[in-house]
Formats: sequence, structure tokens, C-alpha cells
Amino acid sequence: MTFTGLSYIAGQWLENNQGNVFQGFCPGTNEYLPTRFYEVSDEQISQATDAAHAAFKQYRSISNQQRSEFLNTIADEILALGDILIETTMLETNLPRQRLEGERMRTVNQLRVFADVLQQDLAPLKLSCAEEGDETRTPIPKPKTALTYLPVGVVAVFGASNFPYAFSTLGGDTASALAAGCAVVVKAHPAHPATNELMTKAIASAIEKCAMPDGLFSMLQGSEHKTSHQLVSEPMVKAVGFTGSLGAANALLKTIHQRVEPIPFYGELGSVNPQIVLQDYSQKQGGVLATQLVSSMAMGHGQFCTSPGVWFVPSEDDNLVDAAIKAIEATPSDTLLTPGILQAFNRSTTALNEHDAVSLLAKGPQTKDYHASAHLFSCDIQDFVKDVDLQEEVFGPCALLVKYRSYDELLLAIDGLAGQLTASIYGETQELKEQAKLIEALSFKVGRIIYSQAPTGVEVCMSMNHGGPFPSSTDVRSTSVGTKAMTRFLRPLCVQGDQ
Amino acid sequence: MTFTGLSYIAGQWLENNQGNVFQGFCPGTNEYLPTRFYEVSDEQISQATDAAHAAFKQYRSISNQQRSEFLNTIADEILALGDILIETTMLETNLPRQRLEGERMRTVNQLRVFADVLQQDLAPLKLSCAEEGDETRTPIPKPKTALTYLPVGVVAVFGASNFPYAFSTLGGDTASALAAGCAVVVKAHPAHPATNELMTKAIASAIEKCAMPDGLFSMLQGSEHKTSHQLVSEPMVKAVGFTGSLGAANALLKTIHQRVEPIPFYGELGSVNPQIVLQDYSQKQGGVLATQLVSSMAMGHGQFCTSPGVWFVPSEDDNLVDAAIKAIEATPSDTLLTPGILQAFNRSTTALNEHDAVSLLAKGPQTKDYHASAHLFSCDIQDFVKDVDLQEEVFGPCALLVKYRSYDELLLAIDGLAGQLTASIYGETQELKEQAKLIEALSFKVGRIIYSQAPTGVEVCMSMNHGGPFPSSTDVRSTSVGTKAMTRFLRPLCVQGDQ
Repeated sequence: MTFTGLSYIAGQWLENNQGNVFQGFCPGTNEYLPTRFYEVSDEQISQATDAAHAAFKQYRSISNQQRSEFLNTIADEILALGDILIETTMLETNLPRQRLEGERMRTVNQLRVFADVLQQDLAPLKLSCAEEGDETRTPIPKPKTALTYLPVGVVAVFGASNFPYAFSTLGGDTASALAAGCAVVVKAHPAHPATNELMTKAIASAIEKCAMPDGLFSMLQGSEHKTSHQLVSEPMVKAVGFTGSLGAANALLKTIHQRVEPIPFYGELGSVNPQIVLQDYSQKQGGVLATQLVSSMAMGHGQFCTSPGVWFVPSEDDNLVDAAIKAIEATPSDTLLTPGILQAFNRSTTALNEHDAVSLLAKGPQTKDYHASAHLFSCDIQDFVKDVDLQEEVFGPCALLVKYRSYDELLLAIDGLAGQLTASIYGETQELKEQAKLIEALSFKVGRIIYSQAPTGVEVCMSMNHGGPFPSSTDVRSTSVGTKAMTRFLRPLCVQGDQ
Repeated sequence: MTFTGLSYIAGQWLENNQGNVFQGFCPGTNEYLPTRFYEVSDEQISQATDAAHAAFKQYRSISNQQRSEFLNTIADEILALGDILIETTMLETNLPRQRLEGERMRTVNQLRVFADVLQQDLAPLKLSCAEEGDETRTPIPKPKTALTYLPVGVVAVFGASNFPYAFSTLGGDTASALAAGCAVVVKAHPAHPATNELMTKAIASAIEKCAMPDGLFSMLQGSEHKTSHQLVSEPMVKAVGFTGSLGAANALLKTIHQRVEPIPFYGELGSVNPQIVLQDYSQKQGGVLATQLVSSMAMGHGQFCTSPGVWFVPSEDDNLVDAAIKAIEATPSDTLLTPGILQAFNRSTTALNEHDAVSLLAKGPQTKDYHASAHLFSCDIQDFVKDVDLQEEVFGPCALLVKYRSYDELLLAIDGLAGQLTASIYGETQELKEQAKLIEALSFKVGRIIYSQAPTGVEVCMSMNHGGPFPSSTDVRSTSVGTKAMTRFLRPLCVQGDQ
């Protein structure tokens, strides 16, 4: 398989011989891959967003039925890429085949779920409503009004490295924006540039087959910050969907704040996804739970945004701790997605190792020097409350077990938590009933509260919420997963009177 | 009637003898009013937001039924203030009694409309949904999920000068935030400080009668910018509702952007509310329409945010122009709300008078030197398109009549329009059908599109949208009027599994 290394702009693969050149990285061999990718030029970025705006206007005249078919065709074309997609991504990410096949299916299904909502003319979103007028009302007649929704325009999408399909080029943000009636310009993630190129071929083919306007989708290759910053500065961009780190999100927000026109920035960042284990549950099921938690953490080698990073467990419960130590020690080492992520992981685990209040409970084997091995640290809840640094996400296979003695201590720690995507609370029926205050406090810290289940796995459905209070996301008002994600890219219009 | 001049913070009227002292202004006599009002201190602002956060938590345990009664009690207490409220506001604004009585009724009804939604446990908002799990699904069981909504926390509200009741202390933002379950800290508008004090007495009395937590509502008096900036910087503030000018909104946004935690800023600013008169309609009903438009503009002496400021009319239509000139010349002069607004009005009308491409069509009489008289200017659509300054809102009784020759010219001008709260399009049935492209273009520029009706009058109902693309508002995603305004102050929470 050969790759062009080019950006795809309004139906064309465009060269830029003057810019930065970069290569994909193969975590499995710890070496750069041979294909050269070309940084998109400033002019090409403007060209993409202008073409997207023009295509957006044309897309308006295309029925929901046709848009639905288009989304289904994109899904078909992803599958039609065949095994080369999986193989390419395995090279670029070292994620195992089974995981990637599962993620591909999720990505394809996600497109089909949005296609279904379009088939039903957005009715499942329950947005629109209408009220009759009343000419006879005094002192002022009541006007006839109807609330309808318009797509916001061009959406810029920034994919993530950890979900090369589901949260990347043709992931949730792109699918929901296209479903909402928007045009999309993707800044491809440089950790999987060849995967981006293949996915772009799939949508390019769907655009052609469904006779959609060319500018409806563009993909910009690049590894330099300035490319991202220019994209969010483009006047035609009306919303941004982003999945990535807090640092990158804050940098982009700073640029967005320079715009004359404010636009929404939907940054889905990360979190430590607190796991709260109540006393009876811990006593009865602590051992089993520990294994479940380690296996949840091991998914994607700790690189899921919902990875369970901080576990609050009763201080006296040795069952849970013993089982967790065993499970960690049985977790094989593996690569992380990029050399940058590996470096950050090593920095964070070293810092935890050196932290006075923290001790290393267990460490998995390490078979290669560029692998990350699983880590489980522990600390006392009083030390956890004192040092906010202990709340920081370690991206990779690492968790901090925090020992509490009383529910008062636990409540204090929850009150001090930063915003989280999820939290799980494990309890027997009776103790969950008794801890209403604790659950209330926890609810205000998270976007999703989970009873007695692990946090990994984000169902694509109507009642999902994937987001949460800052810093887990930059906009607590909406979800990046599930059908309601479409509402991010819609805005209300009241129509008054009769046409 | 004597006024304390103090801020009301968590159940107490608090003094600050070290700060700035200011007085209300009486536009009717062009003189300052005697009562002295005291700028709230920095410490008091923090005290108010901290108390609001504490009250917000307590408010959570209060049922929707009780909250509903609370909103109805606030409405009752506003009415119980009696005529002193109307008289006080007449002094501070010079708005006529009938208008203020109408606005009071609207404000009271607005509270009752939100109370109704609460009686129905928010069901009319159609937000929540739930999905059953499926343990048997392969390869992964489907979790049981439900989407519910939480209030965001403390809301800071900035009232407007032009609607001293409906968009001020106990206006739409306060009502919708309290209905959503939030606590409110109002920065009172310094153009009607005594009105603010009376309204605060009404809610203080309702808080007492309904045994609500003290910190649920605070009102900060102040006329200095720093007070507003500190309020939006407070960490406990989780959203801001604002009605006012673009300049003030941009300044507050700049401060909000310095926060560690991004928060939504709902700024409802202003617009010129384009009036598009199609050719047949103009020929048949131009004369009547002109009178309607002038009378719409005369509401609040041109100080409604939906005032019709730019009229696109067929160039050959003398009926409309003649009738408009007559109506303008019959419009009595009147005061504007503040000396600052009067100065800005005079600057803007002078600039239009001196503009090469603009001519003065008509001017109303001027009976006092501190009055504003009605102005109607005109220009050719080609000049309008060339100079974006001609799109700027003149706050006060002023409109610009823009003459077009063809629908192509009109479409070009609409494409060049900035975001607007509303636009009206006046057409006979047939020509409205023919101008679908024009209506489509117009829809993307506005928050509300109105068929053959004047823009003033914003119905408080479920299907209203009051907002629009920037710069008419800072956040196109939601409305500041109507029951859906509650959703601004709510955010999703997914509950997964069984408690």
C-alpha cells in the first residue's frame, strides 16, 4: 500500500512542497514509518474552510433522507477499505487487531445510528415545537410561533490519538456534524496519518457515490501547532470538536478567544474517573472488583479517557488490594501510542514513586525498554485531599488506590475533586441508599455516574452523556458521544407567522 | 419612599462606606436623583457568590413543586410592591406608566410560566430520556442508561437599562436560572438602582415566606466596571446571563477568558432587525406598513432590542416612503434612558447626516434639548453593501431605509448582513413562495424570522427564540426568552446502571 501523504481539500489531494514533512511512528518497533506526510499550507487551510462553507450551503438543499444514505455509504466505504485499514492502524498505533476491529465496528455503527435519526427527520432529538397564535388575546394578540433548528455551518474537528477510528477522522464529531447538516474540516492526528488517509478515501468515495458537494469534507495533514491554530481562526469555522489533552485544548481556546466572533469549542479532554467502593461491597466483592478494575484499566493499555485512574477503597480491605496487586503483576507490558505519551507516562510514574505520601503497591513486568508497565500506587485519603497533583491523570496503565476510613472523609475528597467524565460507585443496595449525600456530591463532579460497573465502554445511544465539568471537558452542556451529540452543531430558529 | 442604597447579600442589606457612591438619573428632568447608592465591595461580591453556592446546594433538596411556589410568590410580591414600583421606575427611566405596567405584567407572567414548567417537573422541556439495558447483547452487553439534567450552579445576571423589569433584576435570566435550580447573583443596572432595590425587596420577601436559603439571591449595587469584572471572575460563578451592549459584552468576555474554568456567557446584545419588504406587498400595503414600522420603532422610543432599524424597500415605492415620512414627522420627541445613550444617539445620527451616501428623509419634532427626535434616513442598497458601518445599530428612534431595485441586489445585501436577533419579511403569498432562496439566506442571519409582522414584542412561550448569530448574541445556541431559556442553566448527566 502506498500513501500520497497529502491533504484532501474539497475533492483534491493537494501538494505542499514548501512546508514541514513528517512521518508516522510505529510504537511496535519504536521506529518511524517510511511514508512522508506533508504539512498543509496556510492557503490550503483557508481554501478548505471556504469550500466547506460553500458546500454547507449546497448541503442544505439535500434531504435528510439523502444525508442518511450518505452516512450509511460512508460506513459501507469504511468496511470496503478491508483489512488494509486494520493493518495500517496496527502499524501506526500497535493497538491489537481485535481492539481495532471492534473500534471499526463501533465507528461504522455510530454513522448508522446518526443515519437512523436522520431517517426519522431528527424526531428522536425532540427539539422542535410549535404553538398556535391567538388573534383574540388582549391586550396583545399571541403570534403563531414554531421552533426549528439550523446547522451552525463549518465544523473543525480534531481527532484523538487513542481512538484512531471512533474519535478521529470519521469519528463521532465528524459523524454528528455531518448528520446535523454541517460541513467538516478535519485536522488529522499526526499519530496515525496513514489511517487518516485511508479514512479520507472512504469518505471521498462516499461523497462521489452520493453526489455530495466536494467541499463537504476536507482533511488536513499536519504536525505543527500553527496548522491547528490557523484552522480555529478561520472566519468560516463556526464550531470546533476536539478530543485530546487539557494543554492542547487551552492553547486552542486562547486562539479562539482572539476571534471577533465567539464560537463553541467542544473539547473532550480526560479525567481520572474515580471509582468509589463502598464498605459492604468491598467486603463482599472486593476481590472480583479488583480484577475487573485492572482489566478496565488495561483496555487500550490505560489510554481510554474513561480509564479508572483513582480508586477510593476502604482502608481495611485487604482482599481488594491483594487481588489488585496480583492482577497488576499479571498485566503484560505494552507500547503506548506515541513517544510523547510514553515520556509523559514515565515522568508521571517516577513522580508518584518519589512522592512522600504515595507508595507503589504493584508493578507489572516490563519486557521492552520502550514499553509501559502497569502501575498501582496507593495513598491515604488525607494526603490525597491535601495535594491536588495526586488528582492528575496519568495517561497509560496506572492507577492510584486511595484508602478511606469513613464516609465523611470520602465526602470531603469527593467535594475536592475536579470535573470528571465519569465516576463509578460500587455498593450493595442498602448502602447505596444510605449514601445519597455522597452520590449527590459525586453527580455534580461528573458527566456520567455509573452504579457498580466499570467506566470503560461508552454506549452510542440517545441517553449517553460523554463530557463533564471542566477540566474533563471545556463545555459541560453537551455530549460528544450518542445521538444528542448532533445538538452541538444545531442552533434554534424561531419562525413567527405564516409564510 | 426612602431607599437604603445598599446591596443585598445573602439575606442582609450590607454597607460599604469605603467605595464609590452613585445616584440614579431622571431622564424626565435631566437631573440626578437624590438617593445615594453604594458600590458593593470586592469582599461582598465574593461573599455573595460563596453564599450563593452554599444556597444552591440546599436548593437541590427543595422539590420542583416548592420551587414553583417560590417563583409564584416572587410574582405575587412584585405585584404587592404596588404603585411605588411603577412611580420609582418612571422617575428613573421616564418610560410611560402604561408601558411599565405592561412590562411588570410580562415579568410577573414570565415567573408564572417557569413555575408552570416546574409543576410539570420540566416535562415540557423534553430533555430527559432513558434506555433499557440488554445483558444478552454480544460482544458487549448494553448498559441501562438514563439522561437527566443538573443545574449548573451559581448564575451571575446583568440586567439591561431598557427593560427595567423584564430583562433586569427579576427578569428572564433570573427567573429561568431559579427555575433551573440555580442560585443567582444580580449585578443591578445603575440606570435604575431604586427599582432594583424594590425588586430585591420583593424576592427577599418571597425567600422568607417560602423558607428558601438566604444566599439563593443576592443583588449587587454598583456603577463601576471593576464590580462587573470581579463578579464574572468569581470561581463559584458557573454561567453568566447578560443583556446589554456589544462593547460591554466583549469586555466581560475578555475577563471571562482569563478564568481557569471556562463558563458560558449568554450575552443578548442588539441588532438592526432588518425589515424586508417585497415588491407586491410594498405596492399593495406599503403605506399601512410604513405606519406600523414607525410605531414599532417608537416603542420604548427605539430602545427595544428588536426595534426595526434597517428597512429594505423597493426603490420605486413612494407610498411607503411618503407614509413613513408623515409618521416620523408625527412622532413626538422624548427622552432616552441615560445621558450616555442620548450622547451615542446624537453621535450616530450626526454621522449618518454627514455620510455622503445617506440622506435624511424625515425628522420628528424636538421639544426639549435633551430629547431624542425620531429620524428616518435613506440610502441606496449598493452603498449599504459597501459600508458595514451602515449596519450599526443606532439605539433610539432611528431607522435607515435601504432602496433596492432587484432581488439579486437584495440577496447580496442579506448575505452581507451581520447576525441579527430578528428579521421580518413582508410579502404576498405568491412572492414569499418565489423568494425561498432569500428566506433561506435570511434565516441563517437571524434568531427569529417573522412573516409580515413587526419585530417588537417577544412572546414568552416554548417555541420562542430570542438570541441569534453574533454580534446579536454571544451564544447562538440558546434563547434568553421563553421556557427553553431554562436549558441554558442545565447540563446533562447520564446515570448508568441501577442504584
